[in-house]
Order: sequence, then structure tokens, then C-alpha cells
Amino acid sequence: MSEMLESYAAGRWFRASDEGEPLLDAVTGEEVARISSRGLDLAAMVDHARTVGGPAVRALTFHERAALLKQLAKHLSEDKDELYALSARTGATKRDSMVDIDGGFGTLFSFASKGTRELPNDTVVLDGPLERLGRGGTFVGQHVYTSRPGVAVQINAFNFPVWGMLEKLAPAFLAGLPSIVKPASQTAYLTEAVVRRIIDSGILPEGSLQLLSGSAGSLLDHLGVQDSVAFTGSAHTAGILRTHPSVVHGGLALGVEADSLNCSILGPDVSVDDPEFDLFVKGVVTEMTVKAGQKCTAIRRAIVPSSVADAVVAAISARLAKTTVGDPTDESVRMGALASLAQRDEVRKAIEALRSSADIVYGDPERVELVGADAERGAFMSPVLLRARPGAVEPHDVEPFGPVSTVLTYDSLDEAIALAARGKGSLVGSLVTHDPSVARTVTLGLAPWHGRILVLDRDDAGESTGHGSPLPVLVHGGPGRAGGGEELGGIRGVLHHMQRTALQGSPDMLTAITGRWTTGSARAVGEVHPFRKSLAELRIGDTVESASRTVSLADIDHFAEFTGDTFYAHTDPEAAAANPLFGGIVAHGYLVVSLAAGLFVEPNPGPVLANFGVDNLRFLTPVKAGDTISVQLTVKQITPRTSADYGEVRWDAVVSNADGEAVATYDVLTLVAKTWPA
Amino acid sequence: MSEMLESYAAGRWFRASDEGEPLLDAVTGEEVARISSRGLDLAAMVDHARTVGGPAVRALTFHERAALLKQLAKHLSEDKDELYALSARTGATKRDSMVDIDGGFGTLFSFASKGTRELPNDTVVLDGPLERLGRGGTFVGQHVYTSRPGVAVQINAFNFPVWGMLEKLAPAFLAGLPSIVKPASQTAYLTEAVVRRIIDSGILPEGSLQLLSGSAGSLLDHLGVQDSVAFTGSAHTAGILRTHPSVVHGGLALGVEADSLNCSILGPDVSVDDPEFDLFVKGVVTEMTVKAGQKCTAIRRAIVPSSVADAVVAAISARLAKTTVGDPTDESVRMGALASLAQRDEVRKAIEALRSSADIVYGDPERVELVGADAERGAFMSPVLLRARPGAVEPHDVEPFGPVSTVLTYDSLDEAIALAARGKGSLVGSLVTHDPSVARTVTLGLAPWHGRILVLDRDDAGESTGHGSPLPVLVHGGPGRAGGGEELGGIRGVLHHMQRTALQGSPDMLTAITGRWTTGSARAVGEVHPFRKSLAELRIGDTVESASRTVSLADIDHFAEFTGDTFYAHTDPEAAAANPLFGGIVAHGYLVVSLAAGLFVEPNPGPVLANFGVDNLRFLTPVKAGDTISVQLTVKQITPRTSADYGEVRWDAVVSNADGEAVATYDVLTLVAKTWPA
Repeated sequence: MSEMLESYAAGRWFRASDEGEPLLDAVTGEEVARISSRGLDLAAMVDHARTVGGPAVRALTFHERAALLKQLAKHLSEDKDELYALSARTGATKRDSMVDIDGGFGTLFSFASKGTRELPNDTVVLDGPLERLGRGGTFVGQHVYTSRPGVAVQINAFNFPVWGMLEKLAPAFLAGLPSIVKPASQTAYLTEAVVRRIIDSGILPEGSLQLLSGSAGSLLDHLGVQDSVAFTGSAHTAGILRTHPSVVHGGLALGVEADSLNCSILGPDVSVDDPEFDLFVKGVVTEMTVKAGQKCTAIRRAIVPSSVADAVVAAISARLAKTTVGDPTDESVRMGALASLAQRDEVRKAIEALRSSADIVYGDPERVELVGADAERGAFMSPVLLRARPGAVEPHDVEPFGPVSTVLTYDSLDEAIALAARGKGSLVGSLVTHDPSVARTVTLGLAPWHGRILVLDRDDAGESTGHGSPLPVLVHGGPGRAGGGEELGGIRGVLHHMQRTALQGSPDMLTAITGRWTTGSARAVGEVHPFRKSLAELRIGDTVESASRTVSLADIDHFAEFTGDTFYAHTDPEAAAANPLFGGIVAHGYLVVSLAAGLFVEPNPGPVLANFGVDNLRFLTPVKAGDTISVQLTVKQITPRTSADYGEVRWDAVVSNADGEAVATYDVLTLVAKTWPA
Repeated sequence: MSEMLESYAAGRWFRASDEGEPLLDAVTGEEVARISSRGLDLAAMVDHARTVGGPAVRALTFHERAALLKQLAKHLSEDKDELYALSARTGATKRDSMVDIDGGFGTLFSFASKGTRELPNDTVVLDGPLERLGRGGTFVGQHVYTSRPGVAVQINAFNFPVWGMLEKLAPAFLAGLPSIVKPASQTAYLTEAVVRRIIDSGILPEGSLQLLSGSAGSLLDHLGVQDSVAFTGSAHTAGILRTHPSVVHGGLALGVEADSLNCSILGPDVSVDDPEFDLFVKGVVTEMTVKAGQKCTAIRRAIVPSSVADAVVAAISARLAKTTVGDPTDESVRMGALASLAQRDEVRKAIEALRSSADIVYGDPERVELVGADAERGAFMSPVLLRARPGAVEPHDVEPFGPVSTVLTYDSLDEAIALAARGKGSLVGSLVTHDPSVARTVTLGLAPWHGRILVLDRDDAGESTGHGSPLPVLVHGGPGRAGGGEELGGIRGVLHHMQRTALQGSPDMLTAITGRWTTGSARAVGEVHPFRKSLAELRIGDTVESASRTVSLADIDHFAEFTGDTFYAHTDPEAAAANPLFGGIVAHGYLVVSLAAGLFVEPNPGPVLANFGVDNLRFLTPVKAGDTISVQLTVKQITPRTSADYGEVRWDAVVSNADGEAVATYDVLTLVAKTWPA
């Protein structure tokens, strides 16, 4: 008997004492491992996540969490041979394994990078601008995201045992949540191998990752308001989860990524000789054969103009004929096995259902020529292409989770869009066209039904990652049948795990709570110019109250001449008087901010290293000749960089005139050294 | 028999043919109206919304929709006497009616304003920045929000017949969705009166608003993937909706705002003599008595330090003793009736449940002294204050939907936070403190459990809108028991109704699809300088390719002297050489953008009226003496203003050096006249 897969629960590896269920090699039918969760204390796992893992992750800032993800990604990338060998036993070719294994590690790298660049080095995220709730400015509102003191449970599908885990783990970890990962049994041995490496590395805080090998049993019974379940799998199981008491009555958040009858549409502008025709055919064939078509994002419906349908079918068939099927470790093989014989039976059943309204035009579901493999013991199958008869129903409702696709035809763009919508919500759709107007019409028609849409043509084909590849920076998920969930999408995927709350209070209180200076709160003007303070010394609210300067007509004239910006509103009194907004000569906006810098700067070498940008600059009141301006510059946000000896300081700048009116408001962005000799 | 309330369905007013159910005056017990939906064709309503209302709303831009909401708000505000009279029959005092009626109209105004200022004058919303998906820049990603071709069904609670409808209608309408409004029967006569005014005004496109008076029957059976239901009401009904087949299997989106045991916490820093003590007491009493405590946001749990509990109870009781109860149209009355006798029975039952672990310290649920009203026929009730015994359970689980609150005590901040969390998720919590560190600890501890948190002290009390008031610009909704939904929050509430989709393609295709110029797509350089083109002539992609200019050391010196910005990196060769980022004298960033303006400007009077701002300015490569710079300025987005003869043009600016490196990138914001004489 093979080895029993273990669970990593409450800080220890747990092995079930029963015989468990056998997991078979998809290629040879040999037993790879056994799996069982019998005797596993699920309540203790949840408690361990809540009391040990969660607090440990939330004690870190976003940047610290991101740094751990990066370290983990590097560690896992060091030696992948064992993982590739295990992956082959799931039926995966080397190319398939790259998508799963390297794709998973790449997702960690991407979230590490986004977490550092797009989140603050803090534990609270501000959402949107300050809302002024009273005229006097004493009562303001600010939305924030905070981490939930709960558990993220991740129930994954069998087809991506590595990527599937990591694409859920990375955003949850960044969001401050501990994860309990429950892989699909079929390929759980590969997930277990990766989790073992993660645990052995000691990189992630204890309790932030637990593994449940085997049945999830009553896990959901232990979850509540602050917890979430992210499920990838069948619509049937999703339906069961949706009616679980913890979801219906207990406030448990459930995200679903389920069945999806994704389509690819060939534009009516594309003729057989256009490069787009080949791109379309290649795309369909790739999606049919990568992972033997066992991808939630695969193209199940190829929607093409009636006029080129025969040519499309012929071209796809010709290409499929070149797809060698067999032992995935054989270099000449392009498509490996399905995950199991049971899975192959499911696909054959789905094809039978499709045949009610479509005809097989390529391949035989029962027969396939194999390279280096045995059709009896391995879950192999030929790619199968069908062509829908007019009015076909099943191709829009039956998802054959294997190397199967159906060609459907349309005669107008409206019909193409309507056919796509019959999928009732999909993860991804693609459109192959070189006509921008077709692209606009079809894409906007498809968008409400899709989580992602790829527009492919000769211009982007070279760099395109293809129809079937979710990317960490783009949302993954779709409405309706696809489950209605949303994962990834960069920081969007992190915020989904956090609670958004509207805070109301005085500016001072909001500054204290958010750690970011809030317009209207106290400014600290001290003896020392804030430019003389290092990051370690600088405090939120530290302020420069500048001297004032009167802007003369000569200044404006001179600036126009010097910069070449001789726009009439600065140079021509008569024309400027006719301008509906100014009614006379005004100073250049760029002159105002340049003079403002002259007013607030501390010129000597010091901890402020550079001004690297300006945000949200608005010119609110025209500055006329003779007006006197001054600046208030206040430390708004301090972001130490984890991997550098300086950090970013965002300053709130307000330029005012002698009447106290704001002339210009903006944020000044500087780099400031962490320390500086006194 | 009184009048039968009508439904507005598929373009006609519909009156049920049966006798319906009577709706009774909360104050006198007299019949106000009858209600029934018997015979109403629900499928036809859904179809009408989908085929008539939806297309009509989606044919408008966001700004056009916002303008209609503003017009509607103005129209409804013109004469409110009839509405106030009907509102009094629900038991509402004048102050209560203002919250409902004027609060509802104010919500329309707020969304009209937000829609104009924060959404494009278009039908697609861009979400987040462009994602570069390939090194070459030929393959990029952009998230967008589009309108769903579906129906927004709104099932409202009885307590806010006007606000409850409008706070759901306004964001749905802005999002391009037609609404079917189903008010709670009890107070539906007031909703019907408002809907009648809306329909009569003809302001909203036909089909964008329908009214379902009476039972919703099988309405949900007709809804699917592109539709949504926003429900406000009991957790019990929410549980039924959550398990409806259309939700579980049909992809119908469901938003819930249900029971909420909101708390208000008095900070440990507050002594009996502090102004915050009075603010806390006032807040609790206000929330107990406004709308006779029939607010989802009312304070059900007053959590106070043990040391001041007696004083709090005494002060609240003293204030409650001054609260006159009775005929809501009587000027001296502070609290009117509950919505119905049945509702009063419910509240009495809840109080009985609370008494298992709390004692009544003020008021008698069975007796109340009334002004101008009859306790037998009207649904009147005394405010009731309870004080929880140690270890109390019910105050955290039982929601008495009336003028009832319970005082609980704590001895540490951790305990206060833990008590608040026992509400299992609330719409709103408040904290009364003048100590910023208490504010930070408690607010961040409470945040994951709350949709909104108010921090109240002497500084914001004057302008505070109070614990119980949702504001259109802040999110309304809460996790867990509160339903997990989110409404309002300005544009957030609009985007919740739209589908987010990740688009992938070439920059040119994304420009064509989104209507906004995408970095990397074609630039059109023509004979005419784009500053000579009016809004009507200007096209996305129109570009100025400027001449170049060499920046001399003299320029840098001169700029430093002229502006006063003598920062050492611009003036001191030795010190600048030691700067880790520059390694020598560099031009001021403000000099670079000033010279760039000189390079791209067209100086003569023309359609470009003003530069009103700059966004996202980043200095990417230092400019040193002798470097030559030039600018590309490209029309990125055009936003005509509906109510002015000009609009906003956002220009993409890239300043490059002679090596083609980007020196600075930013958006220039200008106002441009819609037309201009040739």
C-alpha cells in the first residue's frame, strides 16, 4: 500500500489511522498515495488559525507580508524536479506543469510586488478620498479596509494543485488572514508536497497555513462571520455550499468559481487568409489540449461567422490531427491524460449530451492513438471537436471538462453576442478581430457576462498570454454560472478579504486612527524644519509654514519668457480679460508651484533626497499680479521601504493667497533617508 | 372600504381585483388603504424592465442619468405636505418624517452630484490603472465596469418608505439598471404616493421604475444572472431569499441589510463632567426615540465603563423621562407610534427575551402616558432601558425593533471590543471619546465587525450627523448578522450594480473599446495644433509633438535664483554629487514641467480656456545640464460638462530626453470650450 498523505493541522503533521482512499496515477493507473482526514480535529485547526496564525500575520505590515511571499516564491523556485515528477503523474505534460507550478510561484512573486508597490507599509488601507461631512470641516468621513480576525478556507479543484492553492493563499496572506487549504483528493499529493516545503522552510508564520488532506467533513460548521470560503469546483457542490447554515444564517462569506462555458468569437472581418484566422484556430486548439482541456477557462464554444465555419472546422481538425497524445513525460507528446478514468467517463457522458444538438467533426471519444501509454490503464482521450446544429441548446449548458470544444455559427454581431450570453456568465471570453469597431461592439456586449475578455489580433499576439491564462494582476472569476466570485486582480483580490468600513469623526481622530494626516487636523510647526528630519524623526503632521512672496507682473512676464509658456492668459491683458474664467492676466500654475517650492524648501543637504512626484494638483483660485502667496507643507504619510535605506514621504501642500483662499492644493512626494547624522 | 393601492407595472397603473389586506393608521387604528398584488403579471414587469426600461437608461451617459436624478429631486422637493401627512399616519413625528422624506430627496441630490463629479460622461467606468502585460507594451490590461442588461429588484422595510426606496433606486439608476420597487405593505401608501409623483413627472424614462404593491409572489423565479435583489428586512426573510433557487443555482445576486445589534461605546477616558458624557447620553436617547427606535441603525447596546454605569443609567433615564409620547402631529410630542400593533407585540416579546439576562431600569413595556392619542388603538409604547446582568447573552442576540436599549459594562478596552463583536456583525458602531489612542484601539478593533463607525467628541459634535444616520457618501451595510451587503457609499454603491471585467488587448484596441486613450496606442499628429480645436473637433489621440529644448546649467541656476528653490541638488555641485539618486546637479522637476508647458503650449486665444490641474506627475529620469527635452501631449479623455459650454480634457504628457527615456509623465487637465469660431 502506498503512503498516506498527511494534513498539517494545529502545528503538526497528522496522519489518519484508517486505510483511506487510493489516489491513482492518471497515466499508469498505479497507486500514488492514499488519502483520509479521519480523526482530524477540524475545530482545532480553525482555532489554531484564529488564535495563532491570524494574530501572527496581522502583526506584520503589508510590506512585511509581501517580503515573506517573495522569499517563499524564491525558495520554492529553487528545486522543482520532484514537483514536476509528481505533476506528470496527474497526467500533465511539461508545458501543463509549467502552467501549474511556475504559474503558481509567479503568482506569489506578483502579489509580493503588488503588495509592496500598491499597499502602504501599514496594516490599514485607505479607500477613496476624504469625504467632508459638514461645512465647518470638523466632521469628516474616510473609508478604510481592515483585516478580519478570521480564517480563509480554500477548497481547490483537482486541475491546478499548485497554482490553485497559491493564487488563493497569496491574497489571503497579504490581507492578514491565515489559510486552511483543502485540495481536491485526486491530485492532493502534489499540493501536499508543496505545503510540506512551505512548512519546512519556516518562512510563513506558524498557523498561517494549514493543510486538510481528505474530506472537509464538518469544517464549515466551525466557520462564521469573520471567515470566508473560496471554492473552485462544480456548480453542484457550489449549490450545496451556498445553502450551508453557516452561509445562510452564520454570516460566512462564500466565493465561488464554478462551471464556465467560455467562448471565443472570430470577428466577421477576419478572412481565411488573415493572420487572425490562424490565431483563432491556434487558440481553440491550445485551449482544447493544454491540461487535456481540464481548465475552467478553456474554450468550450467557438463562435464563428457562418461563412467561414467550414474553413474553421477544417483548420482546427488539421491542427488537432498533429496533436500527439500519450505519456506526458515523452517529449514528443503534446497532450497527456485526464486526471482519472472517472473523469474520462464524465467527459464522455458530456459529449453524449452535446451530441443531442451537435455532431462530432473530429476525434472519437472512445478511441485514441497513444505514444508510450496504455489506453486501458491511463485516462487518455482524443481531442473531440463538435459542430452545433442550428438552434443547439446543449453546447451552452453542458461543460465537457476535457479536450472538447463545439463550433457554433452566427450571422450578425448581435447574434454572436447573444450566443455568448447563453453561457449564462463565464470566466473568460475572447474575440479575435483586427477591426476596432467590431472589438468595441462585441467587447462591451460581452462584458456584463464575463470576468475577463481577451481581444486578440496580429498586434498583441506576440505578447498575448492567451485565452485560458488567468493573470495575477487581472481579476479571475465570472458572473452567474461561473460562480459570481472574483479572485486575483492584484490588490483587488486582497481587499476582497478585508472589511470596508466608513469612519466618521473629527480630522484629528481620523489622523490618529488611520495613521495618515487628515485634512483639517492639527499641524505641528516646530523649531526644526521637517526637511532636516530623517524618516525616524519625522512625524505625521510635521509642518512647514512658509514665508510669503508677492507675485509681480514682472515675475509672470519673466516666467513666460523664460519657459516659453506665453499662453495669452499670462501675457496679453486684453485677451486675458476676455477669458471667461480669469478676466485678466494670471500667473502660470507652474509658476505658482515653482515659487511654492522656493518657499517651503530647505536647501542644504539633509535627509530629504529627492522630490519624485506630485499628485492631485488642482489650481483653485487664479493668482494675479500683486497677489501674495504662502505654503503649508505637512507630512501626510510615511512609508519606509523594507529593502532600502530610505522611504517615501507624502506631503500635503496648500498654497494660499493673502485672503486665506487656497490657490493650489497637491501632494508632494519625496524620498527621505531613514537616518541622518545630527 | 379604503382605496386599493396600485402597482405601476409595464407602463400602466394596475389595481388588484380582490379586496386585499387593510393597512391601518399607526396612531388611530383607522384603515388608510388596502393592498394586494393579486393578478399582477410579474413576468411582464420583469420583461418590461429588461426590454424597455433598461435599454432606455443605458442609452444615457452617467452625467445624463445624474441630471435626471437632480431634476427628480428638485421636483419631489417642491411640495411635501401630502407626504408629511401620510408619513404621520405611519406613526412618524415631523422630525421622523424629515429623516425619511427629506433624507430620501437629499440622497437623490447626493448621487446626482457624485455621478456628475466622479463618473465620466460616458457609459463605461475604468477601474484602476493600465496593467502592462508584456515587456514590449503591445499587450495590456484594463479593468472596466459595464452596465448589466438586467433588473434591480428592491425589497424595502416598513420603517423608511421614502428614503428606503430612493437610497436603492438612485445608485441602481446611475448604474444603468431599471428598478422594480417592492415596499413593505405596512407603509406602502407613502411609497406609492412618491412613485406616483415620479411617474407623473415623466422625468425618468418609462420602464426604469416600476412599483409592486403587495406580495412579491413568484417575482424571484423570473430573475437570473444579470439581475439583483437588494433586500432590507429581517434575517429570517433574508435566509429564505438566500436559499431561493434563483440565488443558489440561477446566478441572481442578492444583497442583504438585516438585523443589527449596533453598539455605542463610552470611552474609559470620559468622566461624568466631560462634554462627551452628555454626548453619549444624548446619542443613546436620540437613537431610542427617533422613529420610535424602529431603525436598523439604532443603538441597541450601550457599552460603558463599569465605573460610570450607574451615572449613565441615571442620565439616560432622566432624559427619557422628558420624552413625550403621543400623536406625532402634536408639536410637543417627541416620539410617535410604532408602525403597527403587531410590531408593538414583537417589541414586547423581544423585551421579555432580554429580561432573561437584563433588568428594566426605565419604562414599562405595557404602559405609557400619551399626549393626544389612545393607547388602545395606536401602537404606542414607552421607551424602555435595560441594564444587563453579568454574562448577559440576549442583549447580543435579540433585536427589539422599537424604543429599547440595553446598558452593558466593561472593565478594559479589550472587553469593550469583545462585547461589541458579540453582535456578530453590525451596520454601525459608535465610540464617544476624546482620547485619540482610545479612538485608534477601539475603532480598529471594531472595524472588521462594522460597516460604519462614528467617533464622537466635543470637536465634531456640532457637525456630527449622529450614530443612526446613514449618509449617501458613506457605505451602509455591515458584515455577518447585518447581512453582509453594502449600499450607498457614493460611487461604490453604483459600481456594486455593475460588472467588473478585465480587458486584455493591444493598446489600440483598448482605446477603441474604452473610449479613453491608452498608453502605447496610436497618436494622431495633424496640421492643426490640438489647442486650436474645440471640444467638438478634438479627438482621442490628437497629439502635440513638441520641438525640443536643451536645458543649460544657466537655466537651472536661474530657475533656482528666480523661484528661491535653491535645494542643493540644483545648486551645489559637490553636495549634489554625493546625493545617492542624482550624483550631480539636476534640473528642478518644476523647471522640467514648466519648460514642457512652454514647448507644448499654443499661446493664442483659442478653445483651451485654462489648465486646472495636473495628476500623477512622476519624475522618472533626472535631467542634467545639457540634456535636451521634448514633449508628447495626447488627448486621453474628453468629458463634456452637461451644464456648461465647456468640458474637461485630460492630456497624457510624456517629457523625454534625447535618448528617448521618459523624464516625466503626467496628466494635464484643461477646460476646453465646446465650440470655437473657426
